[in-house]
Amino acid sequence: MRRVGAALAHRHFLQQALAEAEVALSMGEVPVGAVVVQDGAVVARAHNLRQTLHDPTAHAEILALRAAARELEDWRLAEATIYVTLEPCLMCAAAIAEARLKQVVFAAYDPERGALGSRQHVLGEGLEARRTEVLGGLMEEEASALLKRFFLSRRDV
Amino acid sequence: MRRVGAALAHRHFLQQALAEAEVALSMGEVPVGAVVVQDGAVVARAHNLRQTLHDPTAHAEILALRAAARELEDWRLAEATIYVTLEPCLMCAAAIAEARLKQVVFAAYDPERGALGSRQHVLGEGLEARRTEVLGGLMEEEASALLKRFFLSRRDV
Repeated sequence: MRRVGAALAHRHFLQQALAEAEVALSMGEVPVGAVVVQDGAVVARAHNLRQTLHDPTAHAEILALRAAARELEDWRLAEATIYVTLEPCLMCAAAIAEARLKQVVFAAYDPERGALGSRQHVLGEGLEARRTEVLGGLMEEEASALLKRFFLSRRDV
Repeated sequence: MRRVGAALAHRHFLQQALAEAEVALSMGEVPVGAVVVQDGAVVARAHNLRQTLHDPTAHAEILALRAAARELEDWRLAEATIYVTLEPCLMCAAAIAEARLKQVVFAAYDPERGALGSRQHVLGEGLEARRTEVLGGLMEEEASALLKRFFLSRRDV
């Protein structure tokens, strides 16, 4: 029963991360979205804004972590889970480790740049060996469809 | 002659990064400072503000990169050099790769957390294999002395 509940919660929050990614897509940004959840409630949500903000670090995960820590007034987010539509890159995975998150749940794997299993593995037994649980590959189809729409639209330009 | 000029320039800008680290120390933050330089001029300067901002990503390097990109209105900093008083951690080294910097020059090595040679090696031939040049170990004594002052002051608390 508990497992079923967790799976439903994961889908629920990934759906919200996907809605954030849709916003990024509408702005011409690479469509990645993230939400940070603590005690069953969303404490921060963000989407990729790298072009818009002229900020090399403005990936969805970094913006969501920063907003969550500001909201909770603590840079340590040890009770929080981040939901993200794409496997985090090395910078974002290391930022998740820096913020001491309890768990990261992501949708699509990123074979080229993913740092939580695809290209490197930063958490768990990986480079950082921090105790952040990693769960990947949920709702992969929906997240990949968004990315495909983005790259197809770019090809038309 | 060119080499002597570069070495002097490195000392000059690292000195400014050390001044930033002094500000962090005066605020009770881990004393790390950074400046971003392009065409011989400082375009951004920052110091660690993780506690003050409640921001797990507010290391000196990240803040300096963000400020430089904002200033130059481009998230790509391909002509810029970042000077930092301590070897960057995995998050910061990956952020430097994300921002496509030309060069990173740092003072003290960080055997426990350094990701540019000590614990991992992210740039050059390392994980990211991006073309950012890395130069470490300049003015190491001055940078280490600052860190020692910080950790000694904490022991007294």
